[in-house]
Amino acid sequence: MLIHPDHLFPAEPSTRKIAKSLYEEIRTLPILSPHGHTQARWFALNQPFSDPAQLFVQPDHYVFRMLCSQGVSLDDLEIGQSTATNPREIWRIFAHHYYLFRGTPTRLWLDYAFQELFGMQDRLSEENADLYFDSITEKLHRPEFLPRALYDRFNIELLATTDSPLDSLGDHKKIRESDWNARIIPTFRPDPVVDPEFPEFATNLIMLAEQTGEDTSTWHGYLNALRSIRARFRELGCRATDHGHPTARTANLPAVEAAQLFGRVSAGKSDAQQSELFRAQMLTEMAGMSLEDGLVMQIHPGSLRNHNRQLFERYGRDTGADIPTATNYVEALRPLLDRFGNERNLTIILFTLDESTYSRELAPLAGHYPCLRLGPPWWFHDSPEGMMRYREHVTETAGFYNTVGFNDDTRAFLSIPGRHDMARRVECSFLAKLVAEHRLDEDEALEIARDLTYNLVKKAYRL
Amino acid sequence: MLIHPDHLFPAEPSTRKIAKSLYEEIRTLPILSPHGHTQARWFALNQPFSDPAQLFVQPDHYVFRMLCSQGVSLDDLEIGQSTATNPREIWRIFAHHYYLFRGTPTRLWLDYAFQELFGMQDRLSEENADLYFDSITEKLHRPEFLPRALYDRFNIELLATTDSPLDSLGDHKKIRESDWNARIIPTFRPDPVVDPEFPEFATNLIMLAEQTGEDTSTWHGYLNALRSIRARFRELGCRATDHGHPTARTANLPAVEAAQLFGRVSAGKSDAQQSELFRAQMLTEMAGMSLEDGLVMQIHPGSLRNHNRQLFERYGRDTGADIPTATNYVEALRPLLDRFGNERNLTIILFTLDESTYSRELAPLAGHYPCLRLGPPWWFHDSPEGMMRYREHVTETAGFYNTVGFNDDTRAFLSIPGRHDMARRVECSFLAKLVAEHRLDEDEALEIARDLTYNLVKKAYRL
Amino acid sequence: MLIHPDHLFPAEPSTRKIAKSLYEEIRTLPILSPHGHTQARWFALNQPFSDPAQLFVQPDHYVFRMLCSQGVSLDDLEIGQSTATNPREIWRIFAHHYYLFRGTPTRLWLDYAFQELFGMQDRLSEENADLYFDSITEKLHRPEFLPRALYDRFNIELLATTDSPLDSLGDHKKIRESDWNARIIPTFRPDPVVDPEFPEFATNLIMLAEQTGEDTSTWHGYLNALRSIRARFRELGCRATDHGHPTARTANLPAVEAAQLFGRVSAGKSDAQQSELFRAQMLTEMAGMSLEDGLVMQIHPGSLRNHNRQLFERYGRDTGADIPTATNYVEALRPLLDRFGNERNLTIILFTLDESTYSRELAPLAGHYPCLRLGPPWWFHDSPEGMMRYREHVTETAGFYNTVGFNDDTRAFLSIPGRHDMARRVECSFLAKLVAEHRLDEDEALEIARDLTYNLVKKAYRL
Repeated sequence: MLIHPDHLFPAEPSTRKIAKSLYEEIRTLPILSPHGHTQARWFALNQPFSDPAQLFVQPDHYVFRMLCSQGVSLDDLEIGQSTATNPREIWRIFAHHYYLFRGTPTRLWLDYAFQELFGMQDRLSEENADLYFDSITEKLHRPEFLPRALYDRFNIELLATTDSPLDSLGDHKKIRESDWNARIIPTFRPDPVVDPEFPEFATNLIMLAEQTGEDTSTWHGYLNALRSIRARFRELGCRATDHGHPTARTANLPAVEAAQLFGRVSAGKSDAQQSELFRAQMLTEMAGMSLEDGLVMQIHPGSLRNHNRQLFERYGRDTGADIPTATNYVEALRPLLDRFGNERNLTIILFTLDESTYSRELAPLAGHYPCLRLGPPWWFHDSPEGMMRYREHVTETAGFYNTVGFNDDTRAFLSIPGRHDMARRVECSFLAKLVAEHRLDEDEALEIARDLTYNLVKKAYRL
Repeated sequence: MLIHPDHLFPAEPSTRKIAKSLYEEIRTLPILSPHGHTQARWFALNQPFSDPAQLFVQPDHYVFRMLCSQGVSLDDLEIGQSTATNPREIWRIFAHHYYLFRGTPTRLWLDYAFQELFGMQDRLSEENADLYFDSITEKLHRPEFLPRALYDRFNIELLATTDSPLDSLGDHKKIRESDWNARIIPTFRPDPVVDPEFPEFATNLIMLAEQTGEDTSTWHGYLNALRSIRARFRELGCRATDHGHPTARTANLPAVEAAQLFGRVSAGKSDAQQSELFRAQMLTEMAGMSLEDGLVMQIHPGSLRNHNRQLFERYGRDTGADIPTATNYVEALRPLLDRFGNERNLTIILFTLDESTYSRELAPLAGHYPCLRLGPPWWFHDSPEGMMRYREHVTETAGFYNTVGFNDDTRAFLSIPGRHDMARRVECSFLAKLVAEHRLDEDEALEIARDLTYNLVKKAYRL
Repeated sequence: MLIHPDHLFPAEPSTRKIAKSLYEEIRTLPILSPHGHTQARWFALNQPFSDPAQLFVQPDHYVFRMLCSQGVSLDDLEIGQSTATNPREIWRIFAHHYYLFRGTPTRLWLDYAFQELFGMQDRLSEENADLYFDSITEKLHRPEFLPRALYDRFNIELLATTDSPLDSLGDHKKIRESDWNARIIPTFRPDPVVDPEFPEFATNLIMLAEQTGEDTSTWHGYLNALRSIRARFRELGCRATDHGHPTARTANLPAVEAAQLFGRVSAGKSDAQQSELFRAQMLTEMAGMSLEDGLVMQIHPGSLRNHNRQLFERYGRDTGADIPTATNYVEALRPLLDRFGNERNLTIILFTLDESTYSRELAPLAGHYPCLRLGPPWWFHDSPEGMMRYREHVTETAGFYNTVGFNDDTRAFLSIPGRHDMARRVECSFLAKLVAEHRLDEDEALEIARDLTYNLVKKAYRL
């Protein structure tokens, strides 16, 4: 057995018993996945996934960054290639290094998928690498392992992708036009057209003009173009925007200054400070638009992208070299909050890669401002210890009801059930500790468990 | 039952047994409350508290900031009004939202008071809101619920208020002149006359002159005026000062430069940097006076006050919108420590809202400098998880004996027993873990439990 | 009994059972001590240690900083004197204050040595201070307590000292030339000749020239001199360098600029910024040399040395007044990593005094870059809670295999067995929790326990 039925529950017997009983009540609730990075194309085309290397290794930063850290070459993993030429060899390298993942959530997610989806019973190793490869590859080509079948089997009620404003959303349209009845919705992620340092920013503005018929060389036209794209997203079910800026900085410039700044930015003449100021201003503009059109705002700040220069030059973006940085929220969010902080019809969900802000900044802010909610632990912190620290650090100041349930935030579609199961087990373990220490009654804990798994997600994301 | 007899003790049976046995030995020790924000007026006048809304909701930032965060209007809570016109309605709103406090210390403090003081047995809810309101209101008007009777019933040995240098301390005098034998003492909090950014700073300096007969337009006269007020406070039992600056920065300017800076400051001509430098200098001046007159110094830095501009403009200060900021101590305290750090007759108690400084800065500093002690977890961190993190982060470097026991730091008089009880339970739980893991002997744990609850408070605050 | 056989194991019975069974498998593994501050001279001369005051109190910052924090005078402890004139009196002062160490690792290390090495059974106190003093002093003069005998008895397989490039390493030579078969090796710590703010920096450069025959007034000659000393260290078994800069900043200047900067620095004309830049550049230069000669690089940044000015002026360096500071790695290491980050033949071991960087910066960096490894918890954090936090914060992102096992990092030779025993117990306790919660299989935990204790140390330090 790869995964024990009691895994992730506390060892202390009375606490474990409470955790298990809470978990039993939420175990089979449908999955709501309001933020993640799966591809609508998979479900539009419904073609089989080809093999475990291209499914589990190549797209998963968590996996190949660890292999890289121990000297495995990204060339040998064929990172950056559109199709793997030697997937079995990639899989063998991975299997040989599987011990590296001991103690990591990746290991638990993978084992969960291996056991629950593919029926594997022995731990992956160099010896059984081919057996795993062949067995999984064979299954992936069965009808019940096609993307749509898996989606249904996973009991997913809603799945949000994350999309560029320049994306035609053709795959989303195809899904909606099909006879398959699933709720897969886009998320508006405007970084390519609001971040002057984004690759091809100038070209992106031109494409934005083409797509909307607005004159994106003027501040007014540019904002209208963004409004227009947001409307297009909303028509396809979009409920939220997402913003991945280097910092959480916001600004609230007078309209004239904002227009001047846009002039510099759109002319490609902004320096680093001006680009940062423009991103800051755009967060406030986006909040204003959210107040108009009801889209929930997600802010994911603080990742220093492409830290490894050599890898970036050779393989491009997304090579597992994005590194967290210390992030300030208290001063950074103030201009936006000065303007919109007390709006009850606005929801801004804050994320962080800097755990020191949980108790110092985020819980105090979310425990006061009506528009703020705290997103779940993000990225490196989306792990048993990370999720436990999150609850331990934010609950006493912000409570449970200023949080929004779980995000799987994954590119790895097959990890979704395992990730949600892990989150449910950890939430129940945290609640069980409170109950066992008589800090919370068991009936309340059960209600909270359901809220964190389902109700708060629907409410926060307006699903 | 709202509060279980074993609440807050660890679930693991052998550890719980140790925790309970430690707790039994300190449970009934008298309460020392050397720092807080209750009002001497309550005890001077000894009038009944009017109703639960004005007692539990309106004065308690912890309570109404959470309600605000979930969209309750401060108008509906009548925040900022001197007397509530519709206390029953405020109470109903609170009761309706009581579930928001699940998992927070506020919930435990409230339940403690509801059960232990008012005999309530069912959890507060929308349904029983009126029952609660009527029952508590009725009791509050009985003689045994008058402020002095409650003080005695709470087994308080000492209670310190926090007072402006401009306060006449008339209520304190009244208490001392009465036949009621209680030790309620003032604390000298000079922010209104040492912080150039404090509202009405210039007026405050004039009042300071009037009260002392000193010429507060000169540096020399200003310092003498402060000395004079400190003496007046000491005559009424004051044992400590308290300083709530935005940062922990200190300075040690040559006397001529300090006098010049005071010139700018008192003329209302200091910019932000100069104001910060003046506050910094004043911490060092205050340390010097403490060395003269024996008052213990408390430094509470790092709160960014009135973060919510709209609320500040509408309701003024203290609307639950004070937010912690990252705080540096190592460089900031150096000028003061360069001058007074090795004085054995000086006690400076440091507090923080930035938990990342516990193990990195505060414990190493307090584990070295003779004049430094660490205050207990403050404000948002004054909670079961927060108190446990504090001990876990500071003990191994600073030990127990560089800490000073518990502060309730509350405006909510009726929460005092519950707050001290919580602290005692958490301290015993921490100690029990050390004993259960054979990191400490049980006889030593018992001595420490007594020291943290009683002896170290008396020693640190020179009571 | 001072130390319980189960000390430091979790109280929960099933977890404790697993921890003990893991511990039994690694308990008797030999000690590898790849980084520390013992003196080769002790083993070269093999003279008896004189008494417990000079052995346990005077050289141990952990001990005398705590005494100092509670008002004990460093004069009374005869700190700064080469030989104690009144060791018994020092010991009595220490014994009288022994209660201060409750809850600290120092207490556990001391008790371990008292019981396991000297057979003491009663807790040290004022009453038995003389008994302790006499009994330990007597034993220290027995043959089996001479340094070499203790080294053998401690089952040490390797012990690294930390040495100035200007050190003749004569003691190391003497040990190698003796008939005693022990592996005691130097570590190359170039701070005295690469940090322009190091005392006597200019003189040190002259001595460097004398020792190597290189012209250290030129950039080229200076670098060659360093290469030459590194070679001399390697001949005596050195496997690693160590760098104790105020920050982790690195630089990668063009050769011409680096040479110009060295010109200013060697002329004593560099300001604080230039000195910092020079140290930064030297980290990158050292990495380049490590790639040539195979020495592993250790970086110990973030200690603000000699924080207590008065003590520094009176007693000099190392009075227990070095205080941690917030430390940045993500931006600071980038220049070095840009150049060497993907080198698989380079090993850089990172340490920190800023625990907030564990999950935010260090684990993400080490979980990606092939050249990076994470050193164990350092200094104040080398404690049961500190070691547990380290594993909890880094494992899920960096795994176990980007860490390098334990360093005792001690000046207190007799604490080595106790320190390694503590680390082994804490590692087993962490692993036992993972096993008890079914996050790791027991056979894997056992393999990891062995790796952390032995194999990873050998691999990381190339022993």
